[in-house]
This record gives sequence, C-alpha cells and structure tokens, in this order.
Amino acid sequence: MTNIDKQVQKIIRNTVDTIETAELHNRLKQKKQLVVKFGADPTAADLHFGHAVVLRKLREFQDFGHKVVFVIGDFTARIGDPSGRSELRPQLSENEINKNAETYQQQAFKILDAEKTEIVFNSSWLGCLTTEELMKLASHYTVARMLERDDFQLRLHKGDAISMQEFIYPLLQAYDSIYLKADVEVGGADQKFNLLVGRDIQHSYGQPGQIVITVPLLEGTDGIKKMSKSYGNYIGLTEPPDKMFGKIMSISDELMYRYYELLTGHDIETIKSISPMEAKLRLASELTNTYNGDEQGNVARQKFEEVFSQHKFPDDAPVIELTPAYFTIIELLTQNGIIDSKSEAKRLVKSGAVSIDGNKIASATEKVKLQKGVYFLRSGRRGFYRLVVKSGVSIK
Amino acid sequence: MTNIDKQVQKIIRNTVDTIETAELHNRLKQKKQLVVKFGADPTAADLHFGHAVVLRKLREFQDFGHKVVFVIGDFTARIGDPSGRSELRPQLSENEINKNAETYQQQAFKILDAEKTEIVFNSSWLGCLTTEELMKLASHYTVARMLERDDFQLRLHKGDAISMQEFIYPLLQAYDSIYLKADVEVGGADQKFNLLVGRDIQHSYGQPGQIVITVPLLEGTDGIKKMSKSYGNYIGLTEPPDKMFGKIMSISDELMYRYYELLTGHDIETIKSISPMEAKLRLASELTNTYNGDEQGNVARQKFEEVFSQHKFPDDAPVIELTPAYFTIIELLTQNGIIDSKSEAKRLVKSGAVSIDGNKIASATEKVKLQKGVYFLRSGRRGFYRLVVKSGVSIK
Repeated sequence: MTNIDKQVQKIIRNTVDTIETAELHNRLKQKKQLVVKFGADPTAADLHFGHAVVLRKLREFQDFGHKVVFVIGDFTARIGDPSGRSELRPQLSENEINKNAETYQQQAFKILDAEKTEIVFNSSWLGCLTTEELMKLASHYTVARMLERDDFQLRLHKGDAISMQEFIYPLLQAYDSIYLKADVEVGGADQKFNLLVGRDIQHSYGQPGQIVITVPLLEGTDGIKKMSKSYGNYIGLTEPPDKMFGKIMSISDELMYRYYELLTGHDIETIKSISPMEAKLRLASELTNTYNGDEQGNVARQKFEEVFSQHKFPDDAPVIELTPAYFTIIELLTQNGIIDSKSEAKRLVKSGAVSIDGNKIASATEKVKLQKGVYFLRSGRRGFYRLVVKSGVSIK
Repeated sequence: MTNIDKQVQKIIRNTVDTIETAELHNRLKQKKQLVVKFGADPTAADLHFGHAVVLRKLREFQDFGHKVVFVIGDFTARIGDPSGRSELRPQLSENEINKNAETYQQQAFKILDAEKTEIVFNSSWLGCLTTEELMKLASHYTVARMLERDDFQLRLHKGDAISMQEFIYPLLQAYDSIYLKADVEVGGADQKFNLLVGRDIQHSYGQPGQIVITVPLLEGTDGIKKMSKSYGNYIGLTEPPDKMFGKIMSISDELMYRYYELLTGHDIETIKSISPMEAKLRLASELTNTYNGDEQGNVARQKFEEVFSQHKFPDDAPVIELTPAYFTIIELLTQNGIIDSKSEAKRLVKSGAVSIDGNKIASATEKVKLQKGVYFLRSGRRGFYRLVVKSGVSIK
C-alpha cells in the first residue's frame, strides 16, 4: 500500500460520496498543493459539531499538505440562500454578515490549520459578475438537470414555492469553483447536487472538474434531525464547558458511537469494549477539552459526576422545610431529626460526609446561604433529605 | 359611446388578448402620454408582414397621442434569445446587432410615426445590471410559474433541453418593463407569457402592471406556419415591388382575407363582395404601394396581369422555330402561316393585337431581338404560338 493509497483511504473514510475516488488518487499523486474548497454560509454566526465533521475532513487534506480555501458566502448570504430548506433564510445586512464571518473563522480555526487556510469572500468576484457573464454561465446548464435536485423535485411536487433566485443559486456556487479553480470541494451530504453542478460547469469552462466529497450530516442531540441551530438540537463549538459537556451527556448511546466516529479519531471497537456510561463521559470530556481547551473537559466531567450523583437521590427522601433563621449546620442536622447528637453531627461533618447539592460542608462553622429553592442534603451514606427553602436562609 | 370607448374598441380589435381591458380604459382616460413598449429582436435584420401586425397596433396608440418605446433587444440578442423556439438562436456580435438594429428601425418607420417613437437599446440598462440585482429580480418569481410557459412545459415533457439561460431570460424582459415604467406592452401571441411576467414583476416593484396586448401571429405564405424568415414563408417589408406583389398573389384566398384583416383597414364584408381574384390583386397592389411607395403596387399589378395572361397560353399552341435571320415582324407573321396577308398583319399590329411575351409590338417596323429561348407570341384574340429560338434572332 503506497502513501497515496493510505491518504485516499483516510480521506474516503466516513464520507458519503467521493466522486470520483480514482480521480482523487490521481490528483493527490500530483506534487502540487491542491485547492480544497469549502463554502461557508455566514447567515449563522455559530459553528456546531455538525460543521466540525466537514472541518475535520478539510483538516485531513491540510495534514497531507494541501490548501483549504474557505469561501465565506457573503454574496449569497446577502441575497439569501435557502438551499435545501423550504423557507427562505433571511437576507442579512453587510454588517451582520461581516460580523458572522469573523466569528465563523475564529471557530473554524479550532479545527483547521490557519497556516494552510485561505479565507476568501465570494462577493469579491460575484460582486463584479455582470448579468451577461451570469447568462453565459447559465447557458451551460439545463432546467431539467437543475430540477433533478431532490429538494427542488420534492417542493415542486408538493406545490411549495421555489423562487427563481434559489434556482439560479447553484450556478453562482459553481462559479465560485471556476473562479478558484478548485481541485476538490468538500461539503455536507445535502450539498452533493450543488457541488456536482460546480464540477460539471468547470468542465464547460475547460477546467478539470473538482472532486466532490460529501460527509454525513451529523444528527443533533435529539438523534433524529440533522444538527441545526434552528432545530435547537445543536452543540456549538463555543458553548461553555459545562453546557457542552452536559449536552453531550444527554445524547443516546447509539448517537454517542456516531459522534465518536465523526468527531474523534478513536477506534469504535475499542470504545465499545468499555461501558456506555464511561464511554459517554470520555467523549464529553474529550470534545470539551478539544473545543474549550485547558482541560476544561476534565473539570466539567468532575462537576458533572458530582451533580449526577445527587440526582440519584431517592424520590422518597424526607422533605425538610427551612424557615428564614440563622442557625449552624450542626443545628440544622440535630434540630430536624437528621442526627441525634451534636457530637455525631460534628464527626460526620469533619469526615466530609455532609453535603448540600454536592458541595461538601468543610467544617461545623461553615457559612452557607441558601436562596429560595430545593436542595439535596446528604448526611452519611444513607441520609438523603430535600431541603425546601421558601425564602432565603443563612447557615452560619 | 365616449371617445375613450372608441379608442378601446379600436385597440382591442384584432387582438388575441388584452389584459385587462378595463385597465386599458382607465389608463387611456388619464391625460398623460402612455409608454407603449415593444421589444424587437435584432437577430434578424428584415422585418416582414408578421411584424407589421404588431407595428400597426403600435401605430394606433401613436394616433391616439401615445409614445411607443421601441426596445432593441441588443443585450438579449448578444446572449441569444431562443424564446418560443426549440433551438438556440445564434449569438451575434455587437457589430452585427447594431447593423441589424439600424435596418430594423428604418423598416419600422414604414409603419410607426417616428415623431412619437423612442428607440432604446436594452444593453444600456441590462449591461449595468449586477448579478445581485438580477438575483433580487429573480426572488419575485417562482420556478413553478416559469414552468407554466407552454413551450417550456412542452420541451421539458419531450425531454428537449431548456438552458438555464433561456429560463432566466423572461426576467430580463420583465426588467425592461420595470426600467421603462411601461404602461402597455404589445407583442405577438407567442409572447403573452413573457409580457405577463413583466406585468407581474412590475407589481413587485411597486409599479402598476403594464397592460398586456397580444396580436395574432400572421401565417406565412404557406398559410400554415407563422410567418418567419427561417421557414422561408415570409414577405419582407423591403422586398422589391414585383417580388412582394407576386408573393401576395401566391397566397390562398382564405389567407388573403386574413391579411386584409391584419394588414389593412378595409371592411372584410365589402372585400368579400368582390371577386377573390380582384380582391387579391387589390391587396397585393395596396400593400406593395404601402411598403414600396410611389404607386409601385399599381405598376406591379399591371406587369403581373400581363405576365399572368401569358401563362394562360394554351398548352397545344403551335410551335414555330425561328432560324437566325433578319426579317420584319410582318414577315414573321405571314411566312409562318400565322396571318394570310400582309395587310391583315399590318392591321393587327397597328391595333396592338400582336405581342411577344406580353410586350406589344408597337409598329410594323419595330425591331425585336430574341435571345435563345421560348417566347409566347399572340396575334389577335385566338392566335397563340410558341416561338422557339435556338440561336439569336433579330426582327427589324
């Protein structure tokens, strides 16, 4: 197996389509640095794990020495790109787009190698494209072929409107590839059609058609729909550690293995040999480390496990209602029939066996302020109580 | 019946569609000069009687005081406009287009009032149209509605290619109407769809939609297909008198009445009261006068009738072979057994009853040179002879 064979094998791993693998092999064999195009839509500022799948594929090309051209679709965003969706996305102002694009880049560099990435804005060439040039571009594609796009077919069939604008849009995306002389374009599986339009029209412009690589659309935390901000099932690359960790912990075991596959380099068989709970904790911890840095995933895991253990609190734990009064932790334990004697209470506190909401009470004189709410009190191995606070309480 | 009612009645006469007549009435009632748009395709230089139908309708508006804006579609011609046809028209160079447009205008002024005509080239605004503006334009129309155009439906159904370019083209035509703030657009019946796109999108741009008026497509001389240079069934507005006259004489009686209706102001019932032959001669004469001027139609009619009468020559007329020799017309008549006596021959010539190929022999001493060929000799009411000349003959 040659080095190029290995590269091809790595690149086609976890892809939906590679059109065509033989061409990919030939193109990789050339000594030159390939132009690997990725079109990013700056109508949303936040990247999420769904984007990470494609960014990781781009990173693989960079690791083999190639250049990623990250096309910020500011021109198309200004127009409103509804591709693959039944409703038009809102048209954004130039300001909003630029702000989004800035945020977008910063997030992408959590995965991409900045040294091997060129950021370009498609307004810089589409903004100068005349109607005459667009019409010439349009002469290279037929209506029948454009109608073959799955969502166009479906919407036309259902009687849902497709604007002429949307119908022309794939031609503009194709022009991006022509302008950039893209060797490869990587995108989500829902972009396959558009990517192929680019490949086809490149041929009409005398260019070797780009190799089209599509990656799976990652399911969102619900495990059903594709991850998308608008479905509320996404995990953003910039989510704070606890939130990111918690969201990952909330996914199903089945989805966890999918995330392992598409978001990490781990061998799935090895992962399946450990318990699903432990596997999930490790996944959450690893991804939180990756996207938040500073071992934030490890910290989040520890916290999560503490909170999690409190949630194992028995449902029938006695309820203790705390009135607004000053008292010590020892008084709290002895006056509510939790512990019989003050000395036993002191001993338990000292041994670290008393905690409120997972926070150990360090000493008998620790001051604790409890706002209105319900708290979990643990006292020794078997003492589980619910503290109900109706208005603020201070324990001195 | 008000004056406006009469104007409406005249305008809707001989139209296929007026959308909407009530709006036309209101618009005509406004005191202002209306903008009546007509889009001309300069891919062909020659105007023919088919164009005359729409130009005459435009002239009616001018006669009511309105302005015709004659849009030379040089931009769309440069791109190639295939509307209503299954094959792409050739893309023309700017030079060819300008030359065609020049010729086109000159011909149009045979019908239009130059004082009330503004000639514009759509490249002057479409040439500056950015892709962004085009995309915004495209957002106001759906694919489903565009597919409703008859020829698109048919071609899609038959599996014939429709290029994306053609599919976008009606939007550009609509933009012409928006740019010109057209009140009315007049076109052939095959343009109805495109004209309505203009009307619809004008609404989206906050303009009152143009009133759409379509006129019938004149059948060509074959009486079957619409008149078109490419079908070879056309009568050009600049054809020389004899040719124009002859082509009109060649049409069927049925088609003649249609031409009367669409190309003249005559009352059809009156025309039907005269013989079809005479009616056709009058039509040919009138149209040739109109488009060639200088009573050229009358001259052509006279010539035509002479040639026509020669074609009524009996098939069994005796053949006289003339050898190359000098002789007089009287000798020709008497030495070939046509006339018995010289005096009778002289009398006939003098009375104008002797002719060769419809050219009367003015005197007994007239000199006639006959090249190699066959000639029709008439002598009196019943004398029909074919003169066969194998090498030149001079009659002195």
